[in-house]
Amino acid sequence: MNKKKIIKFLSEIQMLKRVRREGVKLAGVKIPDSVAEHIAISTQIAYLLAKLEGADASKCVLMSLFHDNEEARIGDPHKISVRYFNVKNAERKAMEEHLSNLPKQIREEILKLQKEMRERNTKEGIIVKDADWLEIAIQAKIYSELGYKGCENWIDNVEKALETKTAKEILAEIRKNPDFLNFWWKGLKKMTYKKLKKK
Amino acid sequence: MNKKKIIKFLSEIQMLKRVRREGVKLAGVKIPDSVAEHIAISTQIAYLLAKLEGADASKCVLMSLFHDNEEARIGDPHKISVRYFNVKNAERKAMEEHLSNLPKQIREEILKLQKEMRERNTKEGIIVKDADWLEIAIQAKIYSELGYKGCENWIDNVEKALETKTAKEILAEIRKNPDFLNFWWKGLKKMTYKKLKKK
Amino acid sequence: MNKKKIIKFLSEIQMLKRVRREGVKLAGVKIPDSVAEHIAISTQIAYLLAKLEGADASKCVLMSLFHDNEEARIGDPHKISVRYFNVKNAERKAMEEHLSNLPKQIREEILKLQKEMRERNTKEGIIVKDADWLEIAIQAKIYSELGYKGCENWIDNVEKALETKTAKEILAEIRKNPDFLNFWWKGLKKMTYKKLKKK
Amino acid sequence: MNKKKIIKFLSEIQMLKRVRREGVKLAGVKIPDSVAEHIAISTQIAYLLAKLEGADASKCVLMSLFHDNEEARIGDPHKISVRYFNVKNAERKAMEEHLSNLPKQIREEILKLQKEMRERNTKEGIIVKDADWLEIAIQAKIYSELGYKGCENWIDNVEKALETKTAKEILAEIRKNPDFLNFWWKGLKKMTYKKLKKK
Amino acid sequence: MNKKKIIKFLSEIQMLKRVRREGVKLAGVKIPDSVAEHIAISTQIAYLLAKLEGADASKCVLMSLFHDNEEARIGDPHKISVRYFNVKNAERKAMEEHLSNLPKQIREEILKLQKEMRERNTKEGIIVKDADWLEIAIQAKIYSELGYKGCENWIDNVEKALETKTAKEILAEIRKNPDFLNFWWKGLKKMTYKKLKKK
Amino acid sequence: MNKKKIIKFLSEIQMLKRVRREGVKLAGVKIPDSVAEHIAISTQIAYLLAKLEGADASKCVLMSLFHDNEEARIGDPHKISVRYFNVKNAERKAMEEHLSNLPKQIREEILKLQKEMRERNTKEGIIVKDADWLEIAIQAKIYSELGYKGCENWIDNVEKALETKTAKEILAEIRKNPDFLNFWWKGLKKMTYKKLKKK
Repeated sequence: MNKKKIIKFLSEIQMLKRVRREGVKLAGVKIPDSVAEHIAISTQIAYLLAKLEGADASKCVLMSLFHDNEEARIGDPHKISVRYFNVKNAERKAMEEHLSNLPKQIREEILKLQKEMRERNTKEGIIVKDADWLEIAIQAKIYSELGYKGCENWIDNVEKALETKTAKEILAEIRKNPDFLNFWWKGLKKMTYKKLKKK
Repeated sequence: MNKKKIIKFLSEIQMLKRVRREGVKLAGVKIPDSVAEHIAISTQIAYLLAKLEGADASKCVLMSLFHDNEEARIGDPHKISVRYFNVKNAERKAMEEHLSNLPKQIREEILKLQKEMRERNTKEGIIVKDADWLEIAIQAKIYSELGYKGCENWIDNVEKALETKTAKEILAEIRKNPDFLNFWWKGLKKMTYKKLKKK
Repeated sequence: MNKKKIIKFLSEIQMLKRVRREGVKLAGVKIPDSVAEHIAISTQIAYLLAKLEGADASKCVLMSLFHDNEEARIGDPHKISVRYFNVKNAERKAMEEHLSNLPKQIREEILKLQKEMRERNTKEGIIVKDADWLEIAIQAKIYSELGYKGCENWIDNVEKALETKTAKEILAEIRKNPDFLNFWWKGLKKMTYKKLKKK
Repeated sequence: MNKKKIIKFLSEIQMLKRVRREGVKLAGVKIPDSVAEHIAISTQIAYLLAKLEGADASKCVLMSLFHDNEEARIGDPHKISVRYFNVKNAERKAMEEHLSNLPKQIREEILKLQKEMRERNTKEGIIVKDADWLEIAIQAKIYSELGYKGCENWIDNVEKALETKTAKEILAEIRKNPDFLNFWWKGLKKMTYKKLKKK
Repeated sequence: MNKKKIIKFLSEIQMLKRVRREGVKLAGVKIPDSVAEHIAISTQIAYLLAKLEGADASKCVLMSLFHDNEEARIGDPHKISVRYFNVKNAERKAMEEHLSNLPKQIREEILKLQKEMRERNTKEGIIVKDADWLEIAIQAKIYSELGYKGCENWIDNVEKALETKTAKEILAEIRKNPDFLNFWWKGLKKMTYKKLKKK
Repeated sequence: MNKKKIIKFLSEIQMLKRVRREGVKLAGVKIPDSVAEHIAISTQIAYLLAKLEGADASKCVLMSLFHDNEEARIGDPHKISVRYFNVKNAERKAMEEHLSNLPKQIREEILKLQKEMRERNTKEGIIVKDADWLEIAIQAKIYSELGYKGCENWIDNVEKALETKTAKEILAEIRKNPDFLNFWWKGLKKMTYKKLKKK
């Protein structure tokens, strides 16, 4: 391996912790999630959707894992900014240059998977895109519950775009839930605040 | 006035507090300054440079005051991202649409000043651009003193680009100062920690 | 120019990014806007009000641009703290010492404008004060929409104090708007989430 | 008890978590400690100094516990700001009004202790003031080790003002330590990163 | 005194500013209060409860002042995590090792008080535990008012656990108040926004 | 699928954005990375190591993707806290309960992979653990370059524990690099600060 190039790549992916999801700033969020956080959670969702849809989960996970890496170089352009930029081309070129620090075989595998996700011409491509969008909608639901009402807009847009039955059903179920943010831990607390025995 | 459009404009410029200067994230800064902060300080610098260079200070201030407003729409693209985007065109189009909420006469005045700054074909255009860059270099000097050594790169680049004698001299003076961050307040503290009289 | 003094001044105005608007902490805001952010946006508003009121916009902008610079030295005293301090005197003295690093002619121009703003004995003085207050009310409206209900109090107080017809109309229009925070970008998003053509 | 007044007092002391130690912003710290954090640690130090100096520890702790409560009302004025304000009077008046929500007997006990700390006319008054300053110097030492070199100034000033032998010796010992921040946990880690047994 | 050990202890208690109250993250709070902040305010509450309940206030304050110090070592385990850990034992052992840097007499005094608080077999032990819980409920009330509705759960749990009449009455009074966060400062503002005399 | 359980799981994994890597707080970091950020980057590293070591990359990625999910429930216990807790057992139990919301087949796949990582009895188990540690060392290197010198300790500990040749070589190369943080972007900037053509 070319050690210099490998550590250049490793230096660059740390940048994904410093780039933030710009879109929700429109709705008033001051310090949004990082791109790295979005990658982690959307990739877990991609795995889950693949399993539930009977697709190739390993492939979906690989496809999702690097899907926003070019944002280390171009930031996270939101849906207003794309009025003014040709974002698609920029993303592709930035991804290619970003991956140029990796050995050819690895780079080509990742690029091929990215293309599949972009074109959504396979079941896995469709699933991974749905996972990407579902993560965005889920985070928006939480912000919305916390009072950022502009975030409802993200959920509406994702709802219209989803393709898989599973993703649609999950989003519908989440929307119905008035307290999704706190849903998971209700009933799990082991109470240590206790009344005295005799008083 | 068209009240709806005016308050749309006012809603939008609040966004300048939520958009952050992306460049220094490259050097490890997690939560950089906002664009609004940069506007305030670089405009004060533009006033000062104009006065010291014997130029039209009122004009410089007006020119500087709106110079990054389009970033409410396109974010703050840093010097890596411009490898992949045609930023100049995007900036111009976003600025035009941003200002479309203002009455024609106001909008045209601002656009004319922006053009002058972009083309630097007048003394004032040159000064305001220098003020913009000088603010970036000054902030980078402070980050550098706090341990973000990658920020030296910003100062080097600004140093090469400055045009006015005053801006060059100021930056040279700042670079020579090993503790610029704390320079202003040394000697100003009124000490209230006092020894007891008799002990 | 006295280079040492000029860079002292430049070191000091960076402090305006670190001083925060203390008032809204009363209402529960943990990390409020910086003074520099307030300066940038209120100065843009001063320009706009001046144009709409047919006043001298250049003068208003200059007047507004330095109007809180003394807060680098005294912080941002809120409306509870002024029960206990003679803030007016402190502001004046701190501003004078702050400006003492600038050449006499510049310093005197700024001080003269500050006096005009304080005394509001000219159209421009009245407009710039209105712009200052309007910015505070606008930010408070956004916080209020995000759930900081105590911020309504700032809007009420500004409403009572405004002098110009334009500022009053603008604030009335903003108060009527139930989603002012998100008002500017509704309808502007270019949707990139798209259904597949044939499926 | 007057329940309304008691819960007003409880509402107010939560504000101490939102007011921050303004001084170190001079040295470049963007989001300093809260006043509540300073109260907790300086009171623990007051207890320790009292024990080591053979003074009344209970009294010292009570004296220290409320010593900055007025900052809920007046903020935390730093050593530049006191050039422009009569801080001492403001502190006293704000403290009195702050405590006016408490029953008379309680209020008077606290005020009496505050006076003792201010006048330092008892052993305990001297110790608690030393604890207050020592906490400031300790925090400054940590910031200094992290690259905020302007913070050395706080340590110098505290060093000159301390009265008790114990506080002086402690500060001298801390200054000698080149890595005070990490001093406590070196050697305590239980390593769970382990080589495989046979490889 | 053993200076090395004393400054180790002082280095460690600064950590209490960096450890945060983990529980409310469940309810969506991104950056909760620090443990040091909780210590300061709950100790002030302990003093107040003691006075109102006619107990030994000095003892209560000492008991409260160190009650979470072991969290420098073990963090702040929330009520889900205690399903999986034996937190009680960990707390005790960590507290003992934490205090081992202090002279024996001091260490034993603190440990004895901690035991009393844990066992709640004295009036003071009961009061200090109530103060600890009351502070948690008060902070939760504020978060709840700001839109973190999951925080209601903390208030419910504290309500069930409180023992003293005073603490119960105070919490009931706070719950009834629809705007507890802003309760203290309403009516205190000295308005400096003023209409012009003649217009 | 059981929709309620699936969305409970999805609600829970959002918590991974709110739980932070506690360890580096020892070294003075105030707001460390989130667990989600660590998962994203360490999983990308796991993929890379697997490729470079000729192992099953898909398996490594799956194994890494969920490796810290139990921290939604137990937080991120650092190396001081494990002196006091039986963390291994807690992790296992929390992971099991966390996964209980997923269908049996999925849950068992993940648990089997976790076991392999824990026991490191396969090439992939060893690689994924190395990737986990390498990510920690890389982040520590960056903090160390920014002045958090206590973070060197993490790098030393990881260095001793790594098993694969590739991971060891990469870490050695990174340690040699005096400016790893900024390494990736040096030379990539497209300069837009330009001198005027003729002047």
